[in-house]
Amino acid sequence: MHKSQLSGFIIDCQTTDLDRSADFWGNALGMPVRELPPGEGEIYKRLEDNQHGLHIEVQAVSHPSRVHLDIETNDIDAEVRRLEGLGARRIEEIRTWVVMEAPTGQRFCVVRATSADFDAKATAWA
Amino acid sequence: MHKSQLSGFIIDCQTTDLDRSADFWGNALGMPVRELPPGEGEIYKRLEDNQHGLHIEVQAVSHPSRVHLDIETNDIDAEVRRLEGLGARRIEEIRTWVVMEAPTGQRFCVVRATSADFDAKATAWA
Repeated sequence: MHKSQLSGFIIDCQTTDLDRSADFWGNALGMPVRELPPGEGEIYKRLEDNQHGLHIEVQAVSHPSRVHLDIETNDIDAEVRRLEGLGARRIEEIRTWVVMEAPTGQRFCVVRATSADFDAKATAWA
Repeated sequence: MHKSQLSGFIIDCQTTDLDRSADFWGNALGMPVRELPPGEGEIYKRLEDNQHGLHIEVQAVSHPSRVHLDIETNDIDAEVRRLEGLGARRIEEIRTWVVMEAPTGQRFCVVRATSADFDAKATAWA
């Protein structure tokens, strides 16, 4: 048995100016912008969501801008198989996460669980 | 002075089969699918988010699939002006909400506040 839940979303911005993009979204959503460590900080900035406890990041990307959802889990392989069973398609593995595509066309990611309340709130799949 | 906050997101699906799209996303995210009243229920279904309290809907659309964010506010005109000041662009008014486009290209909506904790948690703008 494994568990999963929505962890948040990534605001993918087709930009070479990550600072400016993160500033816009931080101000638009009323969320402080947080720097991430070297290795991540060049392409990601975190938005601190004190309203809902979501994991939200702004990412500089080369593809067209979009928003993609992240699903967090304590067993990535099992969660990917569960989602494939629902009709999603595995696109690629990147470092510790898997990019998938919904049958309705949106890309989303399956990531390792990091939310503090994950054990208490995530859905358990038989 | 007005207030605003992220209220959630809409999963826009380019489909003629709203039921099937909502079932996929409800199962993927572990959220029950709720019917909406006639007038809304033909193109929207709600996903009940008991983890974060977000307002999440699946929408049948004719444009390419995407996810768009909703910002809720107690003063739509003031919030739209604030967002224009940050560089966003007003696209169109639909019933009670305004569609905008971020300087980074993503569409998002400014909607009337409905969250139970809006007054307590939303950001107040001077």
